[in-house]
Amino acid sequence: MKQSISGIAASNGIAIAKAFRLENPELTVQQKTVDNASDEINRFDAAVAKASAELEAIKEKTAKQISDKEAAIFGAHLLVLSDPELIGPIKERINAEQANAEYALQETTDMFIQMFEAMDNDYMKERAADIRDVRKRVLSHLLGVTIQNPSMIDEEVIIIAEDLTPSDTVQLNAEFVKGFVTDIGGRTSHSAILARTLEIPAVVGAQRVMSSINNGMTVIVDGLEGVIIVDPDAQIIQQYEEKKQAYGVQKAEWAKMKDQPTMSADGQRVELAANIGTPKDLTGVLENGGEGIGLYRTEFLYMGRETFPTEDEQFDAYSQVLQGMDGKPTVVRTLDIGGDKELTYLDLPKEMNPFLGLRAIRLCLEMTELFRTQLRALLRASVHGNLKIMFPMIATIEEFRQAKGLLEEEKAKLANEGVAVNESIEVGIMVEIPSTAIMADVFAKEVDFFSIGTNDLIQYTMAADRMNERVSYLYQPFNPAILRLVKMVIDASHREGKWTGMCGEMAGDEIAIPILLGLGLDEFSMSASSLLKARSQISKLSKADMASHSERILALSTSEEVEAYVKAIS
Amino acid sequence: MKQSISGIAASNGIAIAKAFRLENPELTVQQKTVDNASDEINRFDAAVAKASAELEAIKEKTAKQISDKEAAIFGAHLLVLSDPELIGPIKERINAEQANAEYALQETTDMFIQMFEAMDNDYMKERAADIRDVRKRVLSHLLGVTIQNPSMIDEEVIIIAEDLTPSDTVQLNAEFVKGFVTDIGGRTSHSAILARTLEIPAVVGAQRVMSSINNGMTVIVDGLEGVIIVDPDAQIIQQYEEKKQAYGVQKAEWAKMKDQPTMSADGQRVELAANIGTPKDLTGVLENGGEGIGLYRTEFLYMGRETFPTEDEQFDAYSQVLQGMDGKPTVVRTLDIGGDKELTYLDLPKEMNPFLGLRAIRLCLEMTELFRTQLRALLRASVHGNLKIMFPMIATIEEFRQAKGLLEEEKAKLANEGVAVNESIEVGIMVEIPSTAIMADVFAKEVDFFSIGTNDLIQYTMAADRMNERVSYLYQPFNPAILRLVKMVIDASHREGKWTGMCGEMAGDEIAIPILLGLGLDEFSMSASSLLKARSQISKLSKADMASHSERILALSTSEEVEAYVKAIS
Repeated sequence: MKQSISGIAASNGIAIAKAFRLENPELTVQQKTVDNASDEINRFDAAVAKASAELEAIKEKTAKQISDKEAAIFGAHLLVLSDPELIGPIKERINAEQANAEYALQETTDMFIQMFEAMDNDYMKERAADIRDVRKRVLSHLLGVTIQNPSMIDEEVIIIAEDLTPSDTVQLNAEFVKGFVTDIGGRTSHSAILARTLEIPAVVGAQRVMSSINNGMTVIVDGLEGVIIVDPDAQIIQQYEEKKQAYGVQKAEWAKMKDQPTMSADGQRVELAANIGTPKDLTGVLENGGEGIGLYRTEFLYMGRETFPTEDEQFDAYSQVLQGMDGKPTVVRTLDIGGDKELTYLDLPKEMNPFLGLRAIRLCLEMTELFRTQLRALLRASVHGNLKIMFPMIATIEEFRQAKGLLEEEKAKLANEGVAVNESIEVGIMVEIPSTAIMADVFAKEVDFFSIGTNDLIQYTMAADRMNERVSYLYQPFNPAILRLVKMVIDASHREGKWTGMCGEMAGDEIAIPILLGLGLDEFSMSASSLLKARSQISKLSKADMASHSERILALSTSEEVEAYVKAIS
Repeated sequence: MKQSISGIAASNGIAIAKAFRLENPELTVQQKTVDNASDEINRFDAAVAKASAELEAIKEKTAKQISDKEAAIFGAHLLVLSDPELIGPIKERINAEQANAEYALQETTDMFIQMFEAMDNDYMKERAADIRDVRKRVLSHLLGVTIQNPSMIDEEVIIIAEDLTPSDTVQLNAEFVKGFVTDIGGRTSHSAILARTLEIPAVVGAQRVMSSINNGMTVIVDGLEGVIIVDPDAQIIQQYEEKKQAYGVQKAEWAKMKDQPTMSADGQRVELAANIGTPKDLTGVLENGGEGIGLYRTEFLYMGRETFPTEDEQFDAYSQVLQGMDGKPTVVRTLDIGGDKELTYLDLPKEMNPFLGLRAIRLCLEMTELFRTQLRALLRASVHGNLKIMFPMIATIEEFRQAKGLLEEEKAKLANEGVAVNESIEVGIMVEIPSTAIMADVFAKEVDFFSIGTNDLIQYTMAADRMNERVSYLYQPFNPAILRLVKMVIDASHREGKWTGMCGEMAGDEIAIPILLGLGLDEFSMSASSLLKARSQISKLSKADMASHSERILALSTSEEVEAYVKAIS
């Protein structure tokens, strides 16, 4: 009974194997009164100790088999387990209410989870997921229930699960686990990211795999298309074996591209750069042949802590990235918080439409001390590489002048203090607000470069919140209005001898790449994992041909027509 | 000791007279237990009866001295007083808690006031103000305190007050009350609107008039500039007497314009139309020489009620407006709710960024039955005048096609039913989303007209919530980006032989008018009270000159430069 289930393509590749269901054990907590609270606290401590030991082991295994970066999440779990602000209240509860440890754990963590989940902030939501994961582990020890251990699998399987916790995912041995599919999760969930690192094909958010797939059924995971085929016949298996082969050939070809410059079929150079969040992401950039950093999101430096990072802490991080990039262009975006990105220690007034509110450069121009600290750290680090500074959410030329003025002031102060600063730092802006794209000719006279931030540019141009599913049909990267704005920006920059990059998700999209190449985009910045595929695609495209196609594309009426046009010429 | 206080210019004109402080009596409520709840209910009923009688008297006086429209707010107050949902709970509270009537009244109304004020909706906030006003009146009778009565004033005065309730304002006799100033309130508060109707100069939101001005002090109210001068010397009084004279001359000149067509100094015709909310607003439009309705906001039909208006109710309202306009062009905008406009009886999910959410046409294309009802009512009414139908918040050409498709379907159904429909209804769109302005060439081939909604167009183009004070510096009507979009729209429409209007606030702005005339705007739609001034201004401008100025203006860099340019050529 062949069946096809659609989901979200989370990690590329094709896998065919038997299904292995990863069940979530029932961890039901009952409220009880205990006779001796201090015995109960001891029992809780013992469970925490076992969980810690397990986590230490998994962390070590991960660091060895995968990377330090992935191991870091278990470091985060260990921090949760040793956090007195969490563990203290649990013990107090056991003591004060004579509560059983399971109940005290459940109730106290519930409070934290709800608090974190209520925040409109992906980072904080991840913290909630961490606490859930840790709680499950401690509960299993308290209840004496064994959590299924994916590392015990010793035959080739496809994992079927409702969801995979980070600790589940990291135990997946790629020798036996050929792919996984889950009912919930999205492309940016922890497990999806890890799947891409492990290069295991994965489809997530498929909604009905647990209810449709039994242990032992043959399953095909098509991580390229986001499709799962259950119980396929021989012919289908044959088809997918061929697709798998073809994908393998393609991957090998991409790998060969790693040390080649990015060049179109007619010999035009463009730059392929990567978006990063922390210095740790450099490894991936270099492994995938990144020619630069097109977007270093510095806000991660400010998150998951209690206070603002000091100038020295920032200096260290920026220097590390610049040194790691060894002279390659490195665009650092100054602090972009507000909107959906909040800092726990910065109490900003609630806004009715945060995406249209006081965010990014708007906030920095109001909290100038905060901004100056970052600028000083950047200026000091600039001697360690090829730094380019980029201001986010610029809407008017006055804002740019003001931000650049502050930069110049800090530069002069450093010069007075005898601190060395790279003299050739380019200063540019994100183009993510319609007014700025429309006024690009005016900006191009004063900025050194543009980088188009498509995520926001699309949402403002279409007046559709990119996080709101009810208007997601209007979030159209290929609406000709967006492409016309992109063209205005590129043309304006070229007329003044400046360059334009793109650091939104669109830059790595295979439909967008031919158009952007044709429009004359100079730099494409994307997630490291997309770089080689993009380089391969560009190597097969003639920039001159794409330029004439782009002209025709800009005259089309709808997003659909644009996509159809590009597919037809591909 | 001359002193100058700034506030918000709420009603044009200059007045000079002695100050008269309108004090709010102390109406302190104490909680008591009463012996006999039914006696207390009788006491409450008596106070309500007195308040009702007062309100009836004021309502009648207002209808006679001012207009039915203004009298309607006292009708609303009377409805509050007879609302069993409000009065019932008060009496229940007296009964159940043996509470004194004052306390029961205060507590119960507090609940309603808080509920209404918590809604992000101007209409509902006004309901809260109504309840406050009514409560004050009933309380004064319960407590035996006399509320100061402005209608007793018998010498020329300037009223000084913290705020004016609608019932205060309506008692102002323009023979003696020469102007008023208040500490709180804005340009759209009830009292400001009424001041404009009464043509009494007023400055509101001045924050410190009650603390600075004593009874009998000489006060100048400059309602043109929003300035109050306390205790002026003879020279200043002389200056303002001259300013007052000049304003009188100007007003007389404007009045002469009433029946003239709108024509530039070089003989080019444009249309001056008005924005209205209800059929009642027609009087003002016709009195001020409106040549059409540029925007009939139909959402008011849907507000302040418990259910959707029926097709027949809508038909009546639309017919009334079309008949009243007697063949003049009448642009009716289809339902524009969502964003900051909510309907109590339509439970829409909370959105994180409502201005970027499911509003206006987006909602109508989802709730098609609701939309079809409105379209049918419009089509049926179309035989009564020169109807033009306009869809709000169109972002893509597909949305327009879909909305127009529904209109055509309803038209065909009516034809089948033998219902007469005007065959020459123009169908156009609001241009208030950047994508639509940028794609105006594509839209111009399919729509009959454009009307630029600047309020939203500015907020999306600048990515700045127009209601958020923290980013109000970015709400820039004169940013060249906005003007360039306006030009794109006008040019695109003219190339296809179509017309472009503007129905945002900008259309009536005296800095904007020369630019818009120069850009070729065909129709200017504004509040009725601005029409004559605009007609007078246009009659002195050469369209050809403004066209060459506009070209230069579009090349400027900032909003400030644009404003300075226009001021320099005026």
